[in-house]
Amino acid sequence: MCQPDSVPTSDCTTPICVLGLGLIGGSVLRAAVAAGRRAWGYNRSPRVVDDAVGDGFDASTDLVAALRRAESERALVVVAVPMPAVDTVLSAIAEHAPNTTVTDVVSIKAEVAAAVAAHGLSGRFVGGHPMAGTAESGWSAGTADLFRDAVWVVAVDDGTNPDAWLQVADLALDCGAVVVPAESREHDAAVARISHLPHILAEALALSGAAGGDLALGLAAGSFRDGTRVAGTAPALVDAMCEGNGPALLTALDETLDVLNAAREQLAAGSTRELTRAGHEARRRYEQRQRHPIEGVVPGDDGWLTKMRDAGRRGEVWTR
Amino acid sequence: MCQPDSVPTSDCTTPICVLGLGLIGGSVLRAAVAAGRRAWGYNRSPRVVDDAVGDGFDASTDLVAALRRAESERALVVVAVPMPAVDTVLSAIAEHAPNTTVTDVVSIKAEVAAAVAAHGLSGRFVGGHPMAGTAESGWSAGTADLFRDAVWVVAVDDGTNPDAWLQVADLALDCGAVVVPAESREHDAAVARISHLPHILAEALALSGAAGGDLALGLAAGSFRDGTRVAGTAPALVDAMCEGNGPALLTALDETLDVLNAAREQLAAGSTRELTRAGHEARRRYEQRQRHPIEGVVPGDDGWLTKMRDAGRRGEVWTR
Repeated sequence: MCQPDSVPTSDCTTPICVLGLGLIGGSVLRAAVAAGRRAWGYNRSPRVVDDAVGDGFDASTDLVAALRRAESERALVVVAVPMPAVDTVLSAIAEHAPNTTVTDVVSIKAEVAAAVAAHGLSGRFVGGHPMAGTAESGWSAGTADLFRDAVWVVAVDDGTNPDAWLQVADLALDCGAVVVPAESREHDAAVARISHLPHILAEALALSGAAGGDLALGLAAGSFRDGTRVAGTAPALVDAMCEGNGPALLTALDETLDVLNAAREQLAAGSTRELTRAGHEARRRYEQRQRHPIEGVVPGDDGWLTKMRDAGRRGEVWTR
Repeated sequence: MCQPDSVPTSDCTTPICVLGLGLIGGSVLRAAVAAGRRAWGYNRSPRVVDDAVGDGFDASTDLVAALRRAESERALVVVAVPMPAVDTVLSAIAEHAPNTTVTDVVSIKAEVAAAVAAHGLSGRFVGGHPMAGTAESGWSAGTADLFRDAVWVVAVDDGTNPDAWLQVADLALDCGAVVVPAESREHDAAVARISHLPHILAEALALSGAAGGDLALGLAAGSFRDGTRVAGTAPALVDAMCEGNGPALLTALDETLDVLNAAREQLAAGSTRELTRAGHEARRRYEQRQRHPIEGVVPGDDGWLTKMRDAGRRGEVWTR
């Protein structure tokens, strides 16, 4: 819940206008209402809107009306449509809600920031990415606590307006998440490693198992099951993630090909020692990671963006 | 439990002599006793033997005595020592238990079969590999139900003695497992794909995440957690598995490098469609695999080894 004694400059009564009511947008709408915010949503599908209204939420298929209301109530506009629809929605925001603060929940950040710049909205935009999801999608899969204890990246790109940043961070905190500040390009490089590359490797591992036929698949136990789990994700969703983050994923994949080629040569020479020591140490580092709170940084103070980026790189989080 | 009305030619009163009382050997000893078998174990460590005796089992540090008893009681000898100790144990078997049937539970089969041949024991040896384990190791980690519903590969190499095969299969069934028949080399090729390659890819993925620093590790969620889980295994254990199955793992790794290099080129051209469709289909095939029972094959009948291999390749299992 929004707490008046939390961040001094936060504006916890800011209403929320959510554009797109799929899994993430629908969960943001629910969580914002649960946190006591005034909130309404738009979706282009009447069926989705009917479901949301049927569940007691304020939703409509009228994008212009939703945005005009956002403009008049000084709402925070949350872009929660898939990447291919972002451009259309940004055009409507530029036209119908020219003074609102805008954020998004798309899983890649540099491409969205570029689209925002192309629409001249950069001055009042702060990118976001809640790192949460389920195997399901759509309004019905959403919940008010989807973001509970999740990480929500809030971008700290050059020129970020500190008041807008705090509005977006407050929404994330109201949704139960912790906030990690990161530049859009650093975010994209990081998620290529820990979110998109895992899908590529899982697909490749699944193919190797199936190439061994029913004998190999019949012998498969925990290591194969866990290593291929995300190959069960709908291919179109994986394509959207991976293709949308192509350059960063290519960098991560090339690094991994180098690692695997070196391991291949060492295995041919009879040893996997170097890979297994390094990989085990890396996994331990992951297991031992901690979320220390960011301290001593005040959005708007001199050098706050640099300090936020450094804190994010240390794995620190912005909390109440 | 051993059931007299099960497989007609099985010999369910055969005692069991387990050499090596780690996780797998210790669990075989417990499971055999739980199934009503006479069973005793050997371990070179007095501490392990004390623990086993303290838990009510018949165990000793005297390898020669354990084997002489196996010879006089016509026991099935189970080699459950790590690969580097297999040679020493086979020498002792050849000397002190020259008429017993012998099996093993080592996770690679061709190398063990070659060592068995070098000791002139092939005529009474049937290789085995129970596909079970935990993150823990040692006597104390074992349980009588470790193999419950697990797959236990029992080798069907050229020249396999059908009575010996049934003795080993009966032990596996008494331990609660289902039996998959496979040639040693086919087994090794299959486990390279579904057990050893997953470790190599998990190590590489862990390294990619750690290379992204605390920011990337802090953003990591389910796909990274599951994809790197087995990188948490002790490196020496992973080395022993992977290095022991070097040629087969090299084949699987080279295939996977081809898949990843092709995916890299397609990603550079803007698409991951081909990989994600194929990988998703492979994972579905894994999820939908079924364990149909082997029917119409009688060990010892004409062509039984070929029929067993074909059944194993279809993912079929030998049950009671």
